Amino acid sequence: MRISQLATESGVPVATIKFYLREGLLHDGELTSATQASYDDSHVLRLRLIRALVGGAGLSIADARELLGGVDAPPQSGHDLLGIAHHALARPVDRSADIAEVDALLDGWGWVSDGCDDVGKAAVAEALEGVRSAGFAFPDGMLDTYARAMHEVAEAEIAGVPTDSTESAVRYVVLGTVLVEPLLLALRRLAQQSASYERFGARPLG
Amino acid sequence: MRISQLATESGVPVATIKFYLREGLLHDGELTSATQASYDDSHVLRLRLIRALVGGAGLSIADARELLGGVDAPPQSGHDLLGIAHHALARPVDRSADIAEVDALLDGWGWVSDGCDDVGKAAVAEALEGVRSAGFAFPDGMLDTYARAMHEVAEAEIAGVPTDSTESAVRYVVLGTVLVEPLLLALRRLAQQSASYERFGARPLG
Repeated sequence: MRISQLATESGVPVATIKFYLREGLLHDGELTSATQASYDDSHVLRLRLIRALVGGAGLSIADARELLGGVDAPPQSGHDLLGIAHHALARPVDRSADIAEVDALLDGWGWVSDGCDDVGKAAVAEALEGVRSAGFAFPDGMLDTYARAMHEVAEAEIAGVPTDSTESAVRYVVLGTVLVEPLLLALRRLAQQSASYERFGARPLG
Repeated sequence: MRISQLATESGVPVATIKFYLREGLLHDGELTSATQASYDDSHVLRLRLIRALVGGAGLSIADARELLGGVDAPPQSGHDLLGIAHHALARPVDRSADIAEVDALLDGWGWVSDGCDDVGKAAVAEALEGVRSAGFAFPDGMLDTYARAMHEVAEAEIAGVPTDSTESAVRYVVLGTVLVEPLLLALRRLAQQSASYERFGARPLG
């Protein structure tokens, strides 16, 4: 199909398609003349994926390119799959954060500290420090509740990693990491509203 | 104390403190002369709170002002507490999103649909649509697992809302919503790394 039809099929404007081509997010079409290229269903699928990453998940073009690079050229080790997704998603963290405290927490929860990277641990340390510096104190056991819930989620997710091909595994891990984050946060807020309504109804507080 | 000492105590530069004063995030000090004001511990605490919201949680100045407004002038209804936090945090959502599907999910999970607002439902619908449009399919039961984990988290959080004063309740809900999001996501990633290491070790996949 021509680029104009690709735009219609995918719902992505021609100018945006050209931008993704220039940025290397979308693979070139097959040249049919010096100035025209032909596109196929693989371009439609790829455009949906790009829109989900850049639109839905809010990634920058650079981060999307890194993630898509992982999908296109998957690593050999199963555990390295997560590395691609987590590296592209990692916000800059303060590497001086107190990782020792996080290691102690992981031990207490029975998580495999050796399998976790320092950037991930620093992100947890930084989030904990953010909570503390705001003068916010968790009720007793709340941090353990968070850890238990996230462990339950992660166990199910990792158990679901397909092993039929490396490509499908990378796709699952990369997309699952990026696209599920907004879903989890949105579900938490709805669950809070539901629980709050059950506890407080519309009654005044205190 | 003088503004220079407030900067030392809080670790926030004088220029930034002046910016927060101008923007109305920080309350004025007591005027001791035409050009000098005196600050106290309440300013140190407030600056920590502002830094946590703007720095740690990554809120804009406008969103931080709305949240702090909720802390300063709490609403009467317990359930409205969440409204302040969720409203300030809400990203623009597509209001044409399929809320009916989300209502059906909530019913299936036994959540109180009447207690949930349309913006929250639209956020879940939009996140689900983002997952789908990327061509990503959840393994069987995964969405229920997400819902169960988030419900467990929310139940514990709402049960922990303090009822000694409205001010402390608002503070708990607002900060708990904002500051815990990065923590949950960071914990999920570490839990994934731990589970992935247990499942795959460093072995090649497939």
